[in-house]
Amino acid sequence: MAKRSGKTGPAKAKPKPRVSAAATDDTAIVALKLPAAPLPPDMAAYFAKCEEKLGFVPNVLKAYAFDPAKLSAFVAMYNDLMLAPSGLSKLEREMIAVAVSSHNRCYYCLVAHGAAVRQLSGDPVLGELMAMNYRAARLSDRERAMLDFAVKLTAEPWRVEEEDRAALRRAGFTDRDIWDIAAVAGFFNMSNRVASATDMRPNSVYHGQSR
Amino acid sequence: MAKRSGKTGPAKAKPKPRVSAAATDDTAIVALKLPAAPLPPDMAAYFAKCEEKLGFVPNVLKAYAFDPAKLSAFVAMYNDLMLAPSGLSKLEREMIAVAVSSHNRCYYCLVAHGAAVRQLSGDPVLGELMAMNYRAARLSDRERAMLDFAVKLTAEPWRVEEEDRAALRRAGFTDRDIWDIAAVAGFFNMSNRVASATDMRPNSVYHGQSR
Amino acid sequence: MAKRSGKTGPAKAKPKPRVSAAATDDTAIVALKLPAAPLPPDMAAYFAKCEEKLGFVPNVLKAYAFDPAKLSAFVAMYNDLMLAPSGLSKLEREMIAVAVSSHNRCYYCLVAHGAAVRQLSGDPVLGELMAMNYRAARLSDRERAMLDFAVKLTAEPWRVEEEDRAALRRAGFTDRDIWDIAAVAGFFNMSNRVASATDMRPNSVYHGQSR
Amino acid sequence: MAKRSGKTGPAKAKPKPRVSAAATDDTAIVALKLPAAPLPPDMAAYFAKCEEKLGFVPNVLKAYAFDPAKLSAFVAMYNDLMLAPSGLSKLEREMIAVAVSSHNRCYYCLVAHGAAVRQLSGDPVLGELMAMNYRAARLSDRERAMLDFAVKLTAEPWRVEEEDRAALRRAGFTDRDIWDIAAVAGFFNMSNRVASATDMRPNSVYHGQSR
Amino acid sequence: MAKRSGKTGPAKAKPKPRVSAAATDDTAIVALKLPAAPLPPDMAAYFAKCEEKLGFVPNVLKAYAFDPAKLSAFVAMYNDLMLAPSGLSKLEREMIAVAVSSHNRCYYCLVAHGAAVRQLSGDPVLGELMAMNYRAARLSDRERAMLDFAVKLTAEPWRVEEEDRAALRRAGFTDRDIWDIAAVAGFFNMSNRVASATDMRPNSVYHGQSR
Amino acid sequence: MAKRSGKTGPAKAKPKPRVSAAATDDTAIVALKLPAAPLPPDMAAYFAKCEEKLGFVPNVLKAYAFDPAKLSAFVAMYNDLMLAPSGLSKLEREMIAVAVSSHNRCYYCLVAHGAAVRQLSGDPVLGELMAMNYRAARLSDRERAMLDFAVKLTAEPWRVEEEDRAALRRAGFTDRDIWDIAAVAGFFNMSNRVASATDMRPNSVYHGQSR
Repeated sequence: MAKRSGKTGPAKAKPKPRVSAAATDDTAIVALKLPAAPLPPDMAAYFAKCEEKLGFVPNVLKAYAFDPAKLSAFVAMYNDLMLAPSGLSKLEREMIAVAVSSHNRCYYCLVAHGAAVRQLSGDPVLGELMAMNYRAARLSDRERAMLDFAVKLTAEPWRVEEEDRAALRRAGFTDRDIWDIAAVAGFFNMSNRVASATDMRPNSVYHGQSR
Repeated sequence: MAKRSGKTGPAKAKPKPRVSAAATDDTAIVALKLPAAPLPPDMAAYFAKCEEKLGFVPNVLKAYAFDPAKLSAFVAMYNDLMLAPSGLSKLEREMIAVAVSSHNRCYYCLVAHGAAVRQLSGDPVLGELMAMNYRAARLSDRERAMLDFAVKLTAEPWRVEEEDRAALRRAGFTDRDIWDIAAVAGFFNMSNRVASATDMRPNSVYHGQSR
Repeated sequence: MAKRSGKTGPAKAKPKPRVSAAATDDTAIVALKLPAAPLPPDMAAYFAKCEEKLGFVPNVLKAYAFDPAKLSAFVAMYNDLMLAPSGLSKLEREMIAVAVSSHNRCYYCLVAHGAAVRQLSGDPVLGELMAMNYRAARLSDRERAMLDFAVKLTAEPWRVEEEDRAALRRAGFTDRDIWDIAAVAGFFNMSNRVASATDMRPNSVYHGQSR
Repeated sequence: MAKRSGKTGPAKAKPKPRVSAAATDDTAIVALKLPAAPLPPDMAAYFAKCEEKLGFVPNVLKAYAFDPAKLSAFVAMYNDLMLAPSGLSKLEREMIAVAVSSHNRCYYCLVAHGAAVRQLSGDPVLGELMAMNYRAARLSDRERAMLDFAVKLTAEPWRVEEEDRAALRRAGFTDRDIWDIAAVAGFFNMSNRVASATDMRPNSVYHGQSR
Repeated sequence: MAKRSGKTGPAKAKPKPRVSAAATDDTAIVALKLPAAPLPPDMAAYFAKCEEKLGFVPNVLKAYAFDPAKLSAFVAMYNDLMLAPSGLSKLEREMIAVAVSSHNRCYYCLVAHGAAVRQLSGDPVLGELMAMNYRAARLSDRERAMLDFAVKLTAEPWRVEEEDRAALRRAGFTDRDIWDIAAVAGFFNMSNRVASATDMRPNSVYHGQSR
Repeated sequence: MAKRSGKTGPAKAKPKPRVSAAATDDTAIVALKLPAAPLPPDMAAYFAKCEEKLGFVPNVLKAYAFDPAKLSAFVAMYNDLMLAPSGLSKLEREMIAVAVSSHNRCYYCLVAHGAAVRQLSGDPVLGELMAMNYRAARLSDRERAMLDFAVKLTAEPWRVEEEDRAALRRAGFTDRDIWDIAAVAGFFNMSNRVASATDMRPNSVYHGQSR
């Protein structure tokens, strides 16, 4: 029989769908029972804007919504890091997010930010490469230096030293850029852990985006 | 601005496609220059069957084709392990393939066999979970025991002992099934390394399959 | 000669002080040149309050002060996590901070939060134990379960599962407490990395506090 | 008393032989009960040849013999990799086998292929060095580069990149040689795991060979 | 409220001292019941000298005192390594002790030898840096090379090779110095393990010394 | 051709002996130039006794002989640990030595103490198993508990806790035995590092002993 003949051949009987491994993702966001709190007006407006622009509220926001102070602090930090002006493009920041989340094998962040890389780059394969092994991607020297720093900082923060910063400077990054690389990598080291600790499930809609 | 507002919003300017990280995947399969050899008749027929059934010849086969003896041995072992009768379903074998390849962060195998999991299961999310972190998937006890064994065998083969086999037996696996789990996990520990050593690139077509 | 006779004996010649390994800590806070920005009024008031209450502004705040939005977001998240009402005492939150920072070998956080554990507990030795190896401390079952979770989440977030949450519940933690343990552990996984990436130096005053 | 005086001195009372740790190695080859299958004629002839030439059938072959298709595929791949023409000598291929098996601490493969290194090199110590720590051996630059690649590919396949292939080329290896190094290293990463998963026991005869 | 306002502020209510994590350190030295043996005269004199010069007998000596032969052998080796003439200063030897003990997270040795570094250097911060992360210290090239070798030898002894010795020679160390670095690092790899295996507790007096 | 046909077949042309990887072992004991010192009388007598009883002086003793104080301290500690009365048999102590040295991949100690295990046990295979992977050996519960403790103490001393001591007590060990297991494991963690740091070469005679 042909290798992998069962995978895509038209003659093949349609596989019986298994109960989906992800069927309830959008209803049970975290494995903790956290009583809902009313959204304060600014956060309610923010959620409405998400619905309007994205078509959905990212589950991480719903997960934090049990406590308005935590939700606000998370949103403020996230939006500053990922969306505010920076020497790093939004795509570069999302690439860091996914490469860090790949090291930490964080399901939530890989799904949500893998979709972001696909969307921002217009390159579905780039999203896969960041999630699977960024070292296998064809990257610019700048991108590679950035991800090497972010992943070393993730894996062995105690080994990051002046030489690592110097490598970023040689690749053209300013000191402010270095801060931003560190801050984004740091942020996802936090988010990966909150997501893993709570078994956070991504919105199903991410899976098909920008493929 | 809304969190992730840039990702999918309709008002958003279309991102300028970056030069794809994967653009040349189908032309440069491995990072080694290996002079082509003529395919022997049985392998030529096999490649033709792949084209007919899958619409393409998987790149791993093209990579091995420089040497007919190596190609034949690989195909024989692969087809026996993944397609011959076994107490493990084809989907289970592909789940092992992807979970092992995830531990080893093998780009080629994650792409090719991630597609197989999506296709065989009819569940795109299951493919993602196997590639990202199988521990985050909602699995049956049987599936979980199988993958725990395969991944431990991948990460720390020197620590696999009778208790590990006993756990598989408690989950309902026969001794023959245990062999098959070990053999599939072992095979992908080989293939992951051949692919990583040669920078093997998967066929682009896999990326969009069964999403 | 007596073992360690040279260490504390009164007859011993006073050692010639070496140029201190930390001499310039308070002047060069990070290894990045980040142009100062004027503090917005609320942050200026906050710094003044630190001076008044602590006698100094913690260096991490000065490090973030180059960008008011980043400073505000950091302060908001920090204060919510470490000082707002929680099922975890402030000491417990600081114990998590130090145990996580010990795993990550973060000099800044070990110094600053080691001092906090000493001060809040009234037990200088507890601060040392958290910084050196929390497993060697005589802890309550509750404290031990809390730190085991936080450190596993730090070391191998991808392995944290329902059983880990169940262990916390058995130790008496509520689901909200579990969130807080995860969020504090996550936060220091972020801060450890920002500090390591920038070679952040703690205020010298911490070293002698509450010994 | 003399250091180690008890180890080899002629005056020493003969130690009472302990029940051997390996006494039943040749009768219970794997820790799985796999019903025997009749050997197909070509494999029966192959086993007979082993008996004639080696004086025994290697246990790994007996282990695979429960399923003729698996046995044939294993033998075909093994013989191609280890015995067919290659830019690597047979000894070099066995050195890779043992260095990889040492990383994976595979008892079966270390015993069987350690014997092969001793026999092919005429140097018993070389076999020990490959099994214990290849870095301690006095190797040619070519041998060292080959083993560094094979062991890195074993330990961290995700980190193997163009620079690693370039190091092999600098040591004089062709691209075809690189394939062969990768394929042999990959094969033993498979075999180590099948052996460890099944607690495969080597033929006792290997232990004394070529000492 | 001000960040960290609770830590040192004068207005703050004094924290209720928790039962100390270390309260019984000086009474229960190890977690093994080892019947006391009478000290032989030379060791009794040695203990008396410790009392006179240090004001106490280090707990590690009391722990070994159950067996005079073991005590004598330990004292002889310790005193030779740490106090006898060497190309390494006593402070350098103590820095190695603490950096090795930090890698091994040994509570006893970090406390006792951290105090020694503080005392010998006259620099309390240097003691903290050695215990927390020697890479964050401002060290001379000589000190850094010495500690890099000692910590690599601790973490991955199998990877230490001629290049590592060459790096020490380039930093000005003689072959005899290299022996001493290795011997001190080796000794603390032993002591760390004896201390961890027996839950050895340091004398409380160390904590406050030379702060 | 038969698998492994080249290894032992009588028809096979004798392999051309390669320049031995170990040829100069007995002349160049360590990779450091350490000027020889005259042996003090007691050590000269000890070396003579080794010659008489073993037929050679173990290279580790020659390596330490550059400094009589270091040699004496090493011999005193070694002989107490390995030869003095203990609840552990001499074979058990040598099994610990080899299992620890296997974890640390120390060529010198694996060769010298592997020979000791073969000699003391009368079981050549047991020596191989200790050097390759003690988990693959058929051991008594007592032996297994002893080696599990010793190897955990080697790999992760910071994780050894009361539960680990309790496991030894359940296996029948006294507290004094636990000390001895820890002390022997600790000693070889020292010796392994001194040997690896200096590239110490074992006497060639060990290789063929008790096979």
